[in-house]
Amino acid sequence: MDDRLERQMSFVLEIDKEKNILRQTHLSGHGRRENDAEHAWHMAIMSWLLREYANEEVDITRVMLMCLIHDVVEIDAGDTYAYDAEGLKTQAAREEAAKQRIFGLLPDDQAKQLMELFDEFEAYETPESKFAHAMDNLQPITLNASNGGSDWREHGVSATQVYGRQSKSALGSQRLYDEVIQPIIERHIASGEIRSA
Amino acid sequence: MDDRLERQMSFVLEIDKEKNILRQTHLSGHGRRENDAEHAWHMAIMSWLLREYANEEVDITRVMLMCLIHDVVEIDAGDTYAYDAEGLKTQAAREEAAKQRIFGLLPDDQAKQLMELFDEFEAYETPESKFAHAMDNLQPITLNASNGGSDWREHGVSATQVYGRQSKSALGSQRLYDEVIQPIIERHIASGEIRSA
Repeated sequence: MDDRLERQMSFVLEIDKEKNILRQTHLSGHGRRENDAEHAWHMAIMSWLLREYANEEVDITRVMLMCLIHDVVEIDAGDTYAYDAEGLKTQAAREEAAKQRIFGLLPDDQAKQLMELFDEFEAYETPESKFAHAMDNLQPITLNASNGGSDWREHGVSATQVYGRQSKSALGSQRLYDEVIQPIIERHIASGEIRSA
Repeated sequence: MDDRLERQMSFVLEIDKEKNILRQTHLSGHGRRENDAEHAWHMAIMSWLLREYANEEVDITRVMLMCLIHDVVEIDAGDTYAYDAEGLKTQAAREEAAKQRIFGLLPDDQAKQLMELFDEFEAYETPESKFAHAMDNLQPITLNASNGGSDWREHGVSATQVYGRQSKSALGSQRLYDEVIQPIIERHIASGEIRSA
């Protein structure tokens, strides 16, 4: 095996660890906690299926790849829960170091491409990034809603927190925000699973 | 929510169940058994990273989507182990019924697109299908090799069986077969994890 292929295969094996990074979301049917690889798989399929609702036209290949790799850094940096204020303060620094190490396993050209794609996702500026973030928000809210909103109740999450995160989904897809996300939030504030503070 | 979006979201929720379909492969580090969603995520990233080794030029978006959805039918049909001769006899019929029900949740145009993509994968004829199958074979052999070949030993798999399945990987990528897959097989026949019969 030449050096290039060896580096590619070492990255392939390394990212297997993403399957052990657990999120706070539970699978539908009140299942176990979801892991990052499952979440990324789900998001990538959703991005293809729902691309007609993106606010701006998107390069769907870039969006799918962005969805697939956006959480690779959590192999080193761990999952930071969307409503963990302390964890969020150090998240960027932890993820930057992880990005360098993990994507750095690849041949230089592919390392550069995936680091740039990760940075693009984080920057929340391009149509692709905004739509991928909308998927990143829509995927867990769909599972949580299917379980009656129990993930919110478990963490004592407030309406202000949920709206703070989810309102940014409208930057990627106003339609999905208006027709799917906002009705879910309102229903779970009304039922008390989300604190109305 | 209009009917189209409602059907899309009902498919999105339905495929969450793929995370509960366990395969015979174990995660690296002698971990737990892998599930179909994790396997599909891994394959899709691998297909993008390794596309330069495809025998023929491929539409990578189609390959990635094929990788992501190829096991959705196992929600109803279950996972059929590659070396389960009895299960393999009924696999096609079980998967056809599952295909109709699960992709049938989608709006007609998307149902048709994904059923055709699934059929294309199964038919093993197009460059995209052959390369996706190479990923379907390379992904578990990579994990199994990282664990010293214990999945083969556990199931008493023979060299004839492994070559029977894996030699078809060369139809998608001769290079990955020659430089990655075949050396792994030979090493594990030599070490006795694969029966040399």
